Amino acid sequence: MRPNEIAKALIRRRSVTPDDAGCQALMAEHLTALGFDCEHLRFGEVDNLWAVRGDSGPLFCFAGHTDVVPTGPEQNWTHPPFDPVEADGWLWGRGAADMKGGLAAMISAVETFLAEHPEPGLRLAFLITSDEEGPAQDGTRKVMETLGERGVTIDYCVVGEPSSRDRVGDVVRHGRRGSLSGQVTVTGVQGHVAYPQNADNPIPRLAAALTELSQRQWDEGDEDFPPTSFQISNFNAGTGANNVIPATAEAWFNFRYSPRQTPEGLQAVVEEVFGRHAPRHEFFWRDSGRPFITRGGRLLEAVRNAVRETAGIEPEFSTSGGTSDGRFIAPTGTELVELGPTNASIHAVDERIGLDELELLSRCYEDILKALQD
Amino acid sequence: MRPNEIAKALIRRRSVTPDDAGCQALMAEHLTALGFDCEHLRFGEVDNLWAVRGDSGPLFCFAGHTDVVPTGPEQNWTHPPFDPVEADGWLWGRGAADMKGGLAAMISAVETFLAEHPEPGLRLAFLITSDEEGPAQDGTRKVMETLGERGVTIDYCVVGEPSSRDRVGDVVRHGRRGSLSGQVTVTGVQGHVAYPQNADNPIPRLAAALTELSQRQWDEGDEDFPPTSFQISNFNAGTGANNVIPATAEAWFNFRYSPRQTPEGLQAVVEEVFGRHAPRHEFFWRDSGRPFITRGGRLLEAVRNAVRETAGIEPEFSTSGGTSDGRFIAPTGTELVELGPTNASIHAVDERIGLDELELLSRCYEDILKALQD
Repeated sequence: MRPNEIAKALIRRRSVTPDDAGCQALMAEHLTALGFDCEHLRFGEVDNLWAVRGDSGPLFCFAGHTDVVPTGPEQNWTHPPFDPVEADGWLWGRGAADMKGGLAAMISAVETFLAEHPEPGLRLAFLITSDEEGPAQDGTRKVMETLGERGVTIDYCVVGEPSSRDRVGDVVRHGRRGSLSGQVTVTGVQGHVAYPQNADNPIPRLAAALTELSQRQWDEGDEDFPPTSFQISNFNAGTGANNVIPATAEAWFNFRYSPRQTPEGLQAVVEEVFGRHAPRHEFFWRDSGRPFITRGGRLLEAVRNAVRETAGIEPEFSTSGGTSDGRFIAPTGTELVELGPTNASIHAVDERIGLDELELLSRCYEDILKALQD
Repeated sequence: MRPNEIAKALIRRRSVTPDDAGCQALMAEHLTALGFDCEHLRFGEVDNLWAVRGDSGPLFCFAGHTDVVPTGPEQNWTHPPFDPVEADGWLWGRGAADMKGGLAAMISAVETFLAEHPEPGLRLAFLITSDEEGPAQDGTRKVMETLGERGVTIDYCVVGEPSSRDRVGDVVRHGRRGSLSGQVTVTGVQGHVAYPQNADNPIPRLAAALTELSQRQWDEGDEDFPPTSFQISNFNAGTGANNVIPATAEAWFNFRYSPRQTPEGLQAVVEEVFGRHAPRHEFFWRDSGRPFITRGGRLLEAVRNAVRETAGIEPEFSTSGGTSDGRFIAPTGTELVELGPTNASIHAVDERIGLDELELLSRCYEDILKALQD
């Protein structure tokens, strides 16, 4: 089946995160027909699909998610977000680009590939969750734990996230930076601004620590990663009165870091700096994803050739951008890339995917499979 | 009349700022009987009383206010706040210490003094407002402007604010620090924390500027003034999301400064520092009172002797604490002190003044008048 038909069937299902709304059942129907064994893995409120086909050769896995972000007011959309329409060369609808279009292209690619190679030299799998746009706790993370317990390892993985900038394949993500978030509360002693000797103002303490951390050069990055970045997102202190020194001051900050750093190492530096400027402090840390990278190997080569062949362009391999479910898969030693449609409309109103993008992406996935089975 | 009776009559009038509630009319009645010319000066919603007696000799002025701060829930008071009660050696009621007790002591002192010296070598005046606890725009400030236009200058001034710590006269304020407040908004460029190169985070800019200002030694103070102090009272930035670099960051700060500094000089330093760290900024400044001090002269001498004589203690002359209406009077060259009751209960529930304090304060004021008329 052509990918646009599969995509439309998926878009019709209102799978606002974490609701799968029957998308995985639809995918399983297609995959079962193609010889996959489909397993429904539900964790908490999250539906996950693990589908696998074949029992010899390296394991190639397509990974992705069926959940979508909310639409906002539906009247702001040119076409109703869950009523997919093909118009002006686009397929319109919530999830068209992020990432039901990618899922459809995967199924379509596998169908065409298996028609030519009914006994390929690869095992094939789909790892699909409905929890990528939400807390990402009961989705890919839990499925990978389950696979780990079973001794299943994935050799190659293509995540269908919308990686492309202007044309399909112009940007392929072959890794991601790590993300470490911190919240800190500095405690002082409240008082009147006219009597600072009786108070201990936590604001300049917090400001001094954050200034030092902001000015620090953490590393210089490398050919694959930009330098580690420290950003403060929130700083809140004060009673709203202009003559009161407040008792506490709070800030939230975030690191995006390369494999040169570890969360433990970054935390140690932050705590040392706060120890000097603001010894009465409390941290709450959240490790939201370790860095990963696929620096070479057969998958990268296959992706580069497939993009050249189908799109006629040279892909740029990048580690920029936010986190993705790839963070749960790559650490097991998998060669992993993210390759999907252009991302200009994702999460916005009037999300859409070019009908040509959809076809091209499907051919590109098919080419990757062909290259890897040899 | 004894000061406790006058104080009770004033406390009965619910003069919650800026309402005078007839207090000044009551004072004018007493003062007219003592030979004062009383003038009612109303500016905006604020009642002010200017009363003057005599036409030769230096001009001695008692200054103060009839307005009081709100009571909070009246059921929390041991005695109803506007129903004055004498009990356990105290006179209880809102304004007893801040500063209807002081006003009563002034009237009582003048009455006794004039009984002995019906033609004193001093002109006497009262400058009373009902706007000291509020914005302080239409009270003493406006009266002083009016007097300035008339060419009236005050030679000596005693403000009856509750200056004392444990006993009447133990602390006399002979000056106040200046107060300069600033609000600053630093503008950056909003963005995603994962793409700091596309954003301009205003938080570290603001933090760096405030850190430099907090660490600066502005001056070392002198024998009368503590060092100039820079305090940040509020720092607010952030969208509440932990992955967004906000567009702006805002802080409020305050200087308390000695006569070694000027508001213009302090502003220039702040603007230079922000120019380096956060060039896109906007300031809102509020000059809430210039510093003033009476370093010597006949008034200080008279006050020292009067406290010694009546209270048997050596007063400590101090410039600590917040601002007062003295800031509007002293800059015209007046010798000025603040001398009043103990301040432990002011602005609190169960405000009260010791009955002995009231008598002692009245005698002390009388002694000052006697010393200055010679």
